[in-house]
Amino acid sequence: MSLYGVVETGGTKIVCAIVSGPDDVRDEVRFPTTSPEENIPQIIAYLQKHHKQTPLTSIGIGSFGPIVLDRSLPNYGSVAPTTKPYWSNAPVVAPIQQALGIPVGFDLDVTTAGLGELQWGAGQGLQHIVYYTVGTGIGAGVITNRSPIACLAHPEAGHQRVSRHPEDDFVGGCSFHADCLEGMASGPAIEKRWGVKAHLLPPDHVAWRIQADYLAQAVMNTILFVSPQRIILGGGVMEQLHLFPLIRQRTLERLNGYINLDAITKHIDDYIVPPALGNRAGMLGALVLAMRAAQR
Amino acid sequence: MSLYGVVETGGTKIVCAIVSGPDDVRDEVRFPTTSPEENIPQIIAYLQKHHKQTPLTSIGIGSFGPIVLDRSLPNYGSVAPTTKPYWSNAPVVAPIQQALGIPVGFDLDVTTAGLGELQWGAGQGLQHIVYYTVGTGIGAGVITNRSPIACLAHPEAGHQRVSRHPEDDFVGGCSFHADCLEGMASGPAIEKRWGVKAHLLPPDHVAWRIQADYLAQAVMNTILFVSPQRIILGGGVMEQLHLFPLIRQRTLERLNGYINLDAITKHIDDYIVPPALGNRAGMLGALVLAMRAAQR
Repeated sequence: MSLYGVVETGGTKIVCAIVSGPDDVRDEVRFPTTSPEENIPQIIAYLQKHHKQTPLTSIGIGSFGPIVLDRSLPNYGSVAPTTKPYWSNAPVVAPIQQALGIPVGFDLDVTTAGLGELQWGAGQGLQHIVYYTVGTGIGAGVITNRSPIACLAHPEAGHQRVSRHPEDDFVGGCSFHADCLEGMASGPAIEKRWGVKAHLLPPDHVAWRIQADYLAQAVMNTILFVSPQRIILGGGVMEQLHLFPLIRQRTLERLNGYINLDAITKHIDDYIVPPALGNRAGMLGALVLAMRAAQR
Repeated sequence: MSLYGVVETGGTKIVCAIVSGPDDVRDEVRFPTTSPEENIPQIIAYLQKHHKQTPLTSIGIGSFGPIVLDRSLPNYGSVAPTTKPYWSNAPVVAPIQQALGIPVGFDLDVTTAGLGELQWGAGQGLQHIVYYTVGTGIGAGVITNRSPIACLAHPEAGHQRVSRHPEDDFVGGCSFHADCLEGMASGPAIEKRWGVKAHLLPPDHVAWRIQADYLAQAVMNTILFVSPQRIILGGGVMEQLHLFPLIRQRTLERLNGYINLDAITKHIDDYIVPPALGNRAGMLGALVLAMRAAQR
C-alpha cells in the first residue's frame, strides 16, 4: 500500500493530507494562506513528519495560479507574477522536492480538480474533458488524452471574450478586461450587477437567463476550440443547479446546428454536467498528480 | 528514397501529387471538386497509376471539413454532414486505402497546412502552434506536442464568439451565427460590409482597424485556451500584411497585461506571424501526414 502527500493551495486556505487512495484519507490539516515564507515551511513540516513515520511515495500539489508549468524553464513549479501579495515568483515545487526527496506532481487548482473528476468523478472513462469553476473567479482545466494541455502556459479561459447580452448593461467586473467571461459571470459580477448575492436571486430572475447565456458562450467556444467529450461546470455559482437546463438550451441555440455531433445535439444532458466530487475534486486530483509523478 | 502520394481536397479544386520530400515534387495534377462519385475514383486512378510505376510508401490527405477524425467510429475518414452538396457522409480514407493498400494519413485542410508550417515553415522547431486561415471562411488548426488536437472532433474556432466593434454595424455574414468570427472577419464579410473586395480597401481605411480587432479577439482567445508558442495567420485576407502590426498591438491592448509571458509581451512580432510556405503549406502538410502514417 502506497501513501501519498496531497496539497491544495487556495486563495484563503491550504489543505494538506496523507492518503492511500480516493476513499482513504489518513490525516488532514488546514491552515490559512499567508505568504510563501510562512506557508511553504508549514507544508514541508507536515509532509516530513508523516514521511518519517511511513515513507510517502510521492506528492501532488494543486495550486492557485498563475503558475509556471514549462519544465524547460528554471522557474518551473513556481507561482508566476500575480497581483496576489507576496506570492509573485515564489517557488513551490523546488523547496518541497528538495526537502522530501521524492517525486512531486504540480498543476493549476482548476486543472487538478478536473483531473480528479476525470479519474473518479463526472469524467470517469473519458479521455477529453474541460472542467470550469465558476465562483469568485472563473477558471478552466483543459484535459486532452487524459493529460492537462500545457503549451506556453496553462489555459486562462475564464478571461475569454463574451458578447454582451442585450438586456445587460453591467460594465463588467474584471480589472483587466472589464466584460470578459469572468468579468460578466463570476459570483462577484452577479452580486455587483444585481446588488445581492447570486444564491439569493430567485430561479425565475432574469439574472439566470443572462448568466446562462454567458456560460453558453463559454461552452460553445470550448467546443469550437477543443471539442471535449464532456464539459463539467463546477464552483459556487454552479450550485444553482437550475442553471444547467438553461445553459444546455442556450448552447444548442447558439451553436444553431453548426456542430453536428450526437454527443452534443442528442445528449446535451450528458454533455454539460455538474461535478460529481464536490469539494473533494481538488484533493483527489492532487492524488492523481502524485500517482502520475511516481510513475514518471 | 521513399515516394508519397499527397492529396489536397478543397472547395473548388483537388490537387494530387507524388513527392519524395518538401522540395521534390515528381508529378502533380489538379481537377475541379465536383462530387465524391467522380472525384474519389479520379484520386484513386492517379495514385494507382504512380503506385504501379514505383510503389508509394503512404498517402496523406488534407480535406475540406467538417470531417470525422475519431478512429473509434465506423465512419472515420469521411466527410461529416455538411451544407456542401453531394459530400455529406462521403467516405474518403476507406476507398483510397482499400484501393491502394498502403497507410493513409488524413486531417482537416487547415490543420494540414498548420502541420506543413510546423515542419518546414513558420513553426519550425516548435511544439505548439495554432494556424488560422482567414479567407472565404475562417478555420484554425490547433497543434499541441506536434500533433493536431483531436477530441470529439477537430476545432471549429472560426465560429468563436467575438464582441462587436463599437464602430461596426454590419449584421454579420455567417448563416449559422451571424456575427461570429467568420461572420465578421472573413473575406466575404469584409466585402459585404464595405461594398468592395478587401484588397481594394486602402491600408488607412477604418475597415482594417475593425478587422484587426476581431482577429485580436481570436488571438486572445487562442492564447487563453491553448497558449501556443506561436500563432500563424494565413489565408487570402492576411496577404494584407499591414494587418499584422495592427493585430499585434490590439492583442496586447486587449490582454491588458493579464498574460505575463515574455514570448507574448516582449516578442509579439515573433508570436503573431504570417505563414512561410504560402500556398505550398497544404501539400507539405499532407506530406507530413503521409510520413507519419507510414510510421504508425
